[in-house]
Amino acid sequence: MKHTQSRDAAAPAAGNGLLHRRWFLTHGAAAGAALLTARNVAAAPLEVPATMKAPGTPSSGYGERSPHESNVQRITNGAAPTPGTGGSRTPLEHLEGIITPNGLHFERHHNGVPDIDPAQHQVLIHGLVERPLTFSIDALSRYPLVSRIQFLECSGNSAALNAAEAPQQGAGGLHGLVSCSEWTGVPLGILLEEAGVRPEGRWLLAEGADAAGMSRSVPMAKALDDAILALYQNGERLRPSNGYPVRLFLPGYEGNMNVKWLRRIKVTAEPTMTKDETSKYSDLQPNGRSLLFTFPMEVKSVITAPSGGQKMQGAGLYQISGLAWSGLGKIRRVDVSADGGKSWARAALDEPVLSKALVRFRLPWQWSGAPSVLMSRAVDELGNVQPTRAALMAARGASYRYHYNAIQSWNVTAAGEIGNVYV
Amino acid sequence: MKHTQSRDAAAPAAGNGLLHRRWFLTHGAAAGAALLTARNVAAAPLEVPATMKAPGTPSSGYGERSPHESNVQRITNGAAPTPGTGGSRTPLEHLEGIITPNGLHFERHHNGVPDIDPAQHQVLIHGLVERPLTFSIDALSRYPLVSRIQFLECSGNSAALNAAEAPQQGAGGLHGLVSCSEWTGVPLGILLEEAGVRPEGRWLLAEGADAAGMSRSVPMAKALDDAILALYQNGERLRPSNGYPVRLFLPGYEGNMNVKWLRRIKVTAEPTMTKDETSKYSDLQPNGRSLLFTFPMEVKSVITAPSGGQKMQGAGLYQISGLAWSGLGKIRRVDVSADGGKSWARAALDEPVLSKALVRFRLPWQWSGAPSVLMSRAVDELGNVQPTRAALMAARGASYRYHYNAIQSWNVTAAGEIGNVYV
Repeated sequence: MKHTQSRDAAAPAAGNGLLHRRWFLTHGAAAGAALLTARNVAAAPLEVPATMKAPGTPSSGYGERSPHESNVQRITNGAAPTPGTGGSRTPLEHLEGIITPNGLHFERHHNGVPDIDPAQHQVLIHGLVERPLTFSIDALSRYPLVSRIQFLECSGNSAALNAAEAPQQGAGGLHGLVSCSEWTGVPLGILLEEAGVRPEGRWLLAEGADAAGMSRSVPMAKALDDAILALYQNGERLRPSNGYPVRLFLPGYEGNMNVKWLRRIKVTAEPTMTKDETSKYSDLQPNGRSLLFTFPMEVKSVITAPSGGQKMQGAGLYQISGLAWSGLGKIRRVDVSADGGKSWARAALDEPVLSKALVRFRLPWQWSGAPSVLMSRAVDELGNVQPTRAALMAARGASYRYHYNAIQSWNVTAAGEIGNVYV
Repeated sequence: MKHTQSRDAAAPAAGNGLLHRRWFLTHGAAAGAALLTARNVAAAPLEVPATMKAPGTPSSGYGERSPHESNVQRITNGAAPTPGTGGSRTPLEHLEGIITPNGLHFERHHNGVPDIDPAQHQVLIHGLVERPLTFSIDALSRYPLVSRIQFLECSGNSAALNAAEAPQQGAGGLHGLVSCSEWTGVPLGILLEEAGVRPEGRWLLAEGADAAGMSRSVPMAKALDDAILALYQNGERLRPSNGYPVRLFLPGYEGNMNVKWLRRIKVTAEPTMTKDETSKYSDLQPNGRSLLFTFPMEVKSVITAPSGGQKMQGAGLYQISGLAWSGLGKIRRVDVSADGGKSWARAALDEPVLSKALVRFRLPWQWSGAPSVLMSRAVDELGNVQPTRAALMAARGASYRYHYNAIQSWNVTAAGEIGNVYV
C-alpha cells in the first residue's frame, strides 16, 4: 500500500482518479464546467409552475415527509424469526450528514416494542447501595441533563459479511445497524452517588421493561464515566422503538447494552451472567472458547455514495462520501482507495468530528469508466486501524459473529453497476 | 452588574442560589441526596409490568412518536391572516439539546407549502453569467455535498416583545421561530463558478416556487462564502415545510432569505429591491427611515427550563438550561442571573460549540423559594453582547419590528409560577 499525498490539489491524490480532498475548494467548477456532466444550458423562458399559481397548504403541528420520499424506509432483511424480534436497519445510502432522523434510527428488539405510559414508569436503583431509590420520569427530568451527539451500533452489525460469498446488499442492508443522534439524559453517576454505591459494588445490572427482560451487566467504571439515562433523542423525547420513556446510553459500547425501556439498575459485585451476555452477545473464537464482555465497537467506516445497489451515471466527476466511527474515541483520519487498496488518498472530514460519533468523510473522484474497487479505511485517535476483511477473518474465524469492522469494498463495473465484493 | 466566579465549585457562583457550573461534576449528588427532592425510597418488591408479560409491537419502516407525546406540537399564535401565511413555532420548552427534530422545525410561509414533484423541479442559474444552467434535483445530488449543524431564525422571531406590556407566553411562543438542524447541500459557489459569474455580477436574486414567489437579494460575497443549496435536513431529504426539494441556506442570515422551494438564482449587478425586502423585512427606525438588508441574526439566548408557563416543583436544586446563538460566529460564553441582573454566573456549554449553531447552556440553581428573576446573556466570539431590553428599545424604538435579540427575563413567584417580565 502506498500513500500519495500531493500538496498540489490539482494533481491526483491516489490511483484510478482520486483527487485531492481540497480539489473542490481550490478548483471548484472553474475546471468543473468540463467535468460535471449533470447540467443543461437553459434556452427557453422559465415556465411558471402550478405551485406558483395557487396557495399551498397551511402550517402544521408536526411536519411529515414528502410523499415522494416514502420509499426511504428502514430495511428489514427477511421475516422476523418470531414476532417482535429481529431488527430494522437505517438506509444509510439514502441519508446524508451524520444525524439519523428519529424515524430511521435502526431497531433491534428481542420481544417487540412495549407500549409504556410514562406516568406509570419507574426506574429502580437497588442492590449494593445505601439507599434504594425509585425515579419517576418526571423526577428524572428534574435532574441535571447533558447532551451529546453519539453513534449507537448493534454488535451484530455487518455480520452478514462473515459469509463465504459476498452478500449482495446495499450499504444500509449490510451496515445499517448503526445510527447517530443527539442524546440528552441524566448522568448515571449522579443517580448512583445519590443512592450511595457500597465499596463492593463494581458492576451493575441493567434491565428493560420489555417482554424479553433484556438485561446486561455493565462495569461500574463505565457507569461513572459517560453513561446517561437518556430521555431525549435529537431534541424530542425518545421514540418507543428507541426505549421510550428512558434508556441506558453507554457511548461507544455495543448496542444491546444500551438497555431500552430501562426499569432497574441493580448494583452488584460481579457480572450477573444474564442470558443476553452468555448464550448471546458473546464471541465464539476458532479455539471453541467464547469471549465475554467485548464492549466497545471498534473503528469502522463505509462508503455510502457510491455504494452497493446504486448505479454510476457515466464516467466523470463524483464525490465519494461515507461514514466513519469508533467506540473508543474520535476518528483521526479516513483514507479512500479507488484501486482496490493499492493506493490511498486522505478524505476530508466534515465538522464536527466528535468522540464516539459518526463522522462524514468526502473525496472527489474522477471516474474513467473503467472497472474499479472503492474502499475506505478509518483510523481512530488511539491509532486503531480498520482491518482488511482477510485479516479480520484470519484472526477471528467465521463463527465470530459480532463486532465485524472490516474494510468494505464496492466493486464498480464498466457498466456502472455497483456491488459488494471481497478483495 | 457584578461577575462572581468562584474557583471553588462549592461556593455560590452568583446571587440568589446560582451554583458553579462545575458543581455537579465535583459534588454530584453526594451532597445532592439532601438537595434533589424528586426521589423515593423503594420499599416493596418490584412489580412486573404488563409490558413484560406479552410481546410488544414489531419493528416498522418509519418510526413514530409515542402517543403520550402528541401534545408536543409546533405553536401557532392565533389564526393565520390568510390561509397558508403566518408561521408555527418550535416548542423550545419541550425540547432538549440543540438539534430540532424535523417535524418540529419552525415554519414561516408567505402563501402556503407547495406540493413539488422532485422529478419535475429545476433550479435555474441565469442573469449575469457566461452559461445559464438548469439543474434537476438528480443533477444537484451528483454535485459535491457538505454538511453543517446550523440554526435558522426568522427575523421576526421574538417580535411580540416589542409590545409595551410583557406578553404572557412560553419560550416557544415568544422565541420559537428559531430551530437548528444538520443541513447538507451543494456549495453555491461551485454552481456559480460553473455558470461563470461576470465581473459586474455582485448580487443575486433567489426566488421560490411557492405562490408568494418569495424572493430576496443576496450579496455575491455571501453566496461564495458559505451558502449552500440544501437538499437534506438532519440526514433525510428536506421536509415540504422546509423547502422540499431544495432551499437556499445562508448560515446566520435572517430566515426569509433562506428561500424555500428554490427555483432560480439570477445574478445581478444591484439588489433587485423585491417586495420581500422593501415593503417587508426592512427595519423602520425612530427617525422614520428604514434600514434595508440587515442580514445577520445577532447574538441571543433564552432560558428554556425553567421558563414561562411552567411551574417550579418547590424549593430545591434545579438545572437552569437554555439556548444561545449568533449569526456572526460562535458563542463565546453565556452568563446567567437569578437576581434580575444584579449578579451573573458563567454557564457550562454542552459540546459541540459550533459557528452559527444553537448552543445548549446549563447551570445549577438552588432555589430558596423566594421570588426570583432569571436571565441569560450571551456573548459571541466577536465580543457582541446580548443587550438588555431597555437598551434595545431605546436604540431602535417600538416600530423596529425585526431582529429583536434582547435579554429574556422570567419571573418566578413564591408560588413557583413563571412568567414573562420586563425588567
